[in-house]
Amino acid sequence: MAYLKRLFIGSPMETKRLKHEKLPKWKALAVFSSDALSSVAYATEEILLVLMILGTSVFFYSLPIALAIVGLLVIVTLSYRQIIYAFPSGGGAYVVARDHINTTTSLVAGAALMIDYVLTVAVSISSAVAALTSAFPALLTWKVEIAVALVLLLMILNLRGITESATVFAYPTYLFIISVLVLIIAGGWKLYNEGWHGFNYANHATPEHFFASGYGVFILLRAFSSGCSAMTGVEAISNGVPSFRPNSSKNAAITMGWMSLLLGIMFLGITILSAGFGVTPAEHKTVISQIGSHVFGNSILFYIFQMITMLILVLAANTSFAGFPQLVSIIATDRYLPRSLAARGDRLVFSNGIILLSILAIILIIIFHGKTHSLIPLYAVGVFLSFTIGQYGMIKKIWKEKSKSNMATLSIIITGTIATGLVTIITVIAKFTHGAWLVIVAIPLIVVLFNKIHAHYETLAQQLKLDKSDRTETKEIVTPKVIIPISGISKVVDQSVQYAKSISDDITAITIVFAEEEEQKIRDKWYKLYPDIELKIIYSPYRTILSPLLDYINKVEKETKGATITILMPQFIVKKWWHTLLHNQTAIFLRFFLILKKDIVIATLPYHLKE
Amino acid sequence: MAYLKRLFIGSPMETKRLKHEKLPKWKALAVFSSDALSSVAYATEEILLVLMILGTSVFFYSLPIALAIVGLLVIVTLSYRQIIYAFPSGGGAYVVARDHINTTTSLVAGAALMIDYVLTVAVSISSAVAALTSAFPALLTWKVEIAVALVLLLMILNLRGITESATVFAYPTYLFIISVLVLIIAGGWKLYNEGWHGFNYANHATPEHFFASGYGVFILLRAFSSGCSAMTGVEAISNGVPSFRPNSSKNAAITMGWMSLLLGIMFLGITILSAGFGVTPAEHKTVISQIGSHVFGNSILFYIFQMITMLILVLAANTSFAGFPQLVSIIATDRYLPRSLAARGDRLVFSNGIILLSILAIILIIIFHGKTHSLIPLYAVGVFLSFTIGQYGMIKKIWKEKSKSNMATLSIIITGTIATGLVTIITVIAKFTHGAWLVIVAIPLIVVLFNKIHAHYETLAQQLKLDKSDRTETKEIVTPKVIIPISGISKVVDQSVQYAKSISDDITAITIVFAEEEEQKIRDKWYKLYPDIELKIIYSPYRTILSPLLDYINKVEKETKGATITILMPQFIVKKWWHTLLHNQTAIFLRFFLILKKDIVIATLPYHLKE
Repeated sequence: MAYLKRLFIGSPMETKRLKHEKLPKWKALAVFSSDALSSVAYATEEILLVLMILGTSVFFYSLPIALAIVGLLVIVTLSYRQIIYAFPSGGGAYVVARDHINTTTSLVAGAALMIDYVLTVAVSISSAVAALTSAFPALLTWKVEIAVALVLLLMILNLRGITESATVFAYPTYLFIISVLVLIIAGGWKLYNEGWHGFNYANHATPEHFFASGYGVFILLRAFSSGCSAMTGVEAISNGVPSFRPNSSKNAAITMGWMSLLLGIMFLGITILSAGFGVTPAEHKTVISQIGSHVFGNSILFYIFQMITMLILVLAANTSFAGFPQLVSIIATDRYLPRSLAARGDRLVFSNGIILLSILAIILIIIFHGKTHSLIPLYAVGVFLSFTIGQYGMIKKIWKEKSKSNMATLSIIITGTIATGLVTIITVIAKFTHGAWLVIVAIPLIVVLFNKIHAHYETLAQQLKLDKSDRTETKEIVTPKVIIPISGISKVVDQSVQYAKSISDDITAITIVFAEEEEQKIRDKWYKLYPDIELKIIYSPYRTILSPLLDYINKVEKETKGATITILMPQFIVKKWWHTLLHNQTAIFLRFFLILKKDIVIATLPYHLKE
Repeated sequence: MAYLKRLFIGSPMETKRLKHEKLPKWKALAVFSSDALSSVAYATEEILLVLMILGTSVFFYSLPIALAIVGLLVIVTLSYRQIIYAFPSGGGAYVVARDHINTTTSLVAGAALMIDYVLTVAVSISSAVAALTSAFPALLTWKVEIAVALVLLLMILNLRGITESATVFAYPTYLFIISVLVLIIAGGWKLYNEGWHGFNYANHATPEHFFASGYGVFILLRAFSSGCSAMTGVEAISNGVPSFRPNSSKNAAITMGWMSLLLGIMFLGITILSAGFGVTPAEHKTVISQIGSHVFGNSILFYIFQMITMLILVLAANTSFAGFPQLVSIIATDRYLPRSLAARGDRLVFSNGIILLSILAIILIIIFHGKTHSLIPLYAVGVFLSFTIGQYGMIKKIWKEKSKSNMATLSIIITGTIATGLVTIITVIAKFTHGAWLVIVAIPLIVVLFNKIHAHYETLAQQLKLDKSDRTETKEIVTPKVIIPISGISKVVDQSVQYAKSISDDITAITIVFAEEEEQKIRDKWYKLYPDIELKIIYSPYRTILSPLLDYINKVEKETKGATITILMPQFIVKKWWHTLLHNQTAIFLRFFLILKKDIVIATLPYHLKE
């Protein structure tokens, strides 16, 4: 067990080795934007999948929808660039809301963020597997298994403690950016030569019919919500400002600009190509892989492109393995989650948070059969809710500070807040029946859980606090009353009797017999060996042990004043684990029950068998 | 939990209520033969299923095979009638072999019998469900679920303690006997009128080709082995002699005769009808139900017949719920199985045996998808092996006694032993690849397990025995050295310190810090409160608690001579179970580890939280 742990996780690390590296811009871009950039691998497809309800004749609308999303991206980017300057210490929506709005709002943000991190893993990994199976359809049978294995791999790597800043992680991001840009340029050239033969307004869209029904507009909004999954993760840079080299705010703001620019180009480019080539979503081949195979043919380039896509998506999932444990450790330190989530493991990472994230993501992947599309509706609500809360918190902060330059900054952030707030509402409405309700139900439940946990820790601290009043009276020292439950007479019992004599002179052995005739036999044997120790024999007609013993303890409790009752349990310890199956576990059960119910000391005296 | 137990199982019963009822012959027949008689519901079908490998052209051979089995039945019946007279105290093959052959043989018999009891439940219940689904094919989807539910029902009824002798159980057996006899008479009449239109020697069998290949003979033997499943349970009466009214041996022998006669008639009758009507086994309709629907048409009579068949099969499974727990309790009393299997539960039944049987049967049903046919090959080996061992044991017993009348008796039992021995060998060979190997592997494994368990109990008794030598020296009484591991200072710790003072004056508190700077803080706080008690502070750079604590205990152990080390664990007990998730379970882990590894006392002092 310990050996296996060392093999997979590595040797423990000293607390002192905790430190932070400062990143140059080019590396920071790679580290913080894999989540955001990788979403172009599925965002266009999600738009088309929604539009498909109305038929391919409306696929042309994917273009204005993508434009609207890019518009939103610009607003959010401008807003977050202001936030980077105003709040250079970083910190996500939870911390901002906690410090500048109020506890409940921060807990809502915390719940939304936790859900998002889990979904980032589930969505990115599902999408990574889709990239893989689009290239190698033979692997489709093992879709869920591969996804689960990838999550477990990320879990192990993160338990070992890979630093987010490792240079090795920078390459896949740039490879992905380059390969998507190559795809867009080569695809654009091909489209120019072939001519636009996909979906267009003239030959496909039917606007009168489309807008006549409210349903059409509703579907349009739903497609927009789905496409907004392209924007997940864009806030990452604003949380990571302290990781930038000085002047960190400026560097972060510049990096954020570049990231949004790249994201916008890649997302628009892919959407245009899909419309131009007339790509329709297929069960087992992603939209982006269809574009890829159209542009690159069945050449090696196509397979490389798919592998890079898979890699960036796995990397996007990995960002959650840094973010989620960090977030839950902050919440746990605030005592809204179990303390164990705030403890660093052997390798200085928040091991419990990493394991929790893995389990939750695996559950989601299994429940939703590793289908990206089924998970997306759960995604956008939490993302935009935390965008909105985070920005609102910044407004309150800046408002309090009342610095001179704040009016321009404020108006930009307010615009961003309103935009993301609107998207949140649109998403809730448009996707309610498609899974968004699950998140709407989950967030309040998680908040209630947060509060229950907090209440427990609060009352606990109060109850355990050692007041002066508890200590003033010098208590008289009374030796305990020792009770030894025995089932027969043996070396184990003898050892217990000897020990009992060393701590007290008020000792009673107690035994329970199932047949009245056994009584005299055990009595004779006992008093021959221990003439000075009382043996209480209880006849149990129903062959139960616990209840007569408990009755006896209750009686003694009433009679004894001052002395603590000590139950001394003789217990032999078997040599091999399976031997425990061969013995009644009454002692364990008894101990468990007594500790739970009674204010008495339970002492176990083990006797280790040699064979 | 306790409430649910009472609801399903009923109130506990006093040990004194254990008694035995004596049965009249007509009732004993019903009680002891449901297992044997019910097997006609599947035995013919099993023969046909094997013959089908060679095609329906050899189905005619089911008749000579059935005749051979009836011949075997006669031999076994005669043998067991002698055993009834020679060994009126009953007892199955295990007891007979233990008392008259040797331990290993008795353990082989014990293993074979255990397997048989489990298979009786699995086969009978699967067959009962097949009877049900033959009438109501809509239930086929729920085949396995229904079978599992029936096993659970029998488990609950038997945990309540239904007496085997309940009159209510007599009716289904007689109903089944009557309905099969009606089927045979009505079917015979129909066959007489319609003429023999099924399989016969003239128009179907191809003897030259059949016997030319050794394979044909092999299949014939395999079909015979399968048909022998008709004989499972015929020994039941010989085990139950003490339950008969006096003159019990004579009454039991007469009852056994009647049972075998009925079994022979029913089995032959059904086989003849199946050949006469030309019934071939079908996937979802049992052979006996096909005969039933041919004779009774689609009338209510057919459905009644199927229900009665189902009922008798469930009853047959129920006989195992009496036999298996009784057998394992005898083996456990001999210390070859865990003692808990010999303990009577609340309702005076061997609850653990009943639960074990149910679990094993359910596992078999699930693994074999509730298909009777898949389970049959596992069945016959154990049955005939225990027949052979049981009879052989009787031979040895009678031989030892050397009474005057023993030559005739002996020769009959020897004939029976040879016959069943041969069938065992035939079955092993003919069905080896069809699942018999599983039993051949399982029996030795179970015997090894028996011996391992026995060895453990033997060395345990030796190790725990309190010799006079252990007691001669009067040991000097030394107060224990008390160590209190603490993680902070609180009421819980204070309570433990007070208790420690009451049992010893050699007390050390120990705490582990993860940051060096915490050291002075806790030291100051401690000595202000407890100036007279030493506090040992250990800095743990790797944030582990167990190993530094263990190092310390090891050191103290070496230094301390004579005094027992006592670890006093302060532990607060939360009010609601889920609160335990909010606290580190280091104490539990520590306790578990120390008890397993060290000869020290672990005392837990619980502090019960109010909220």
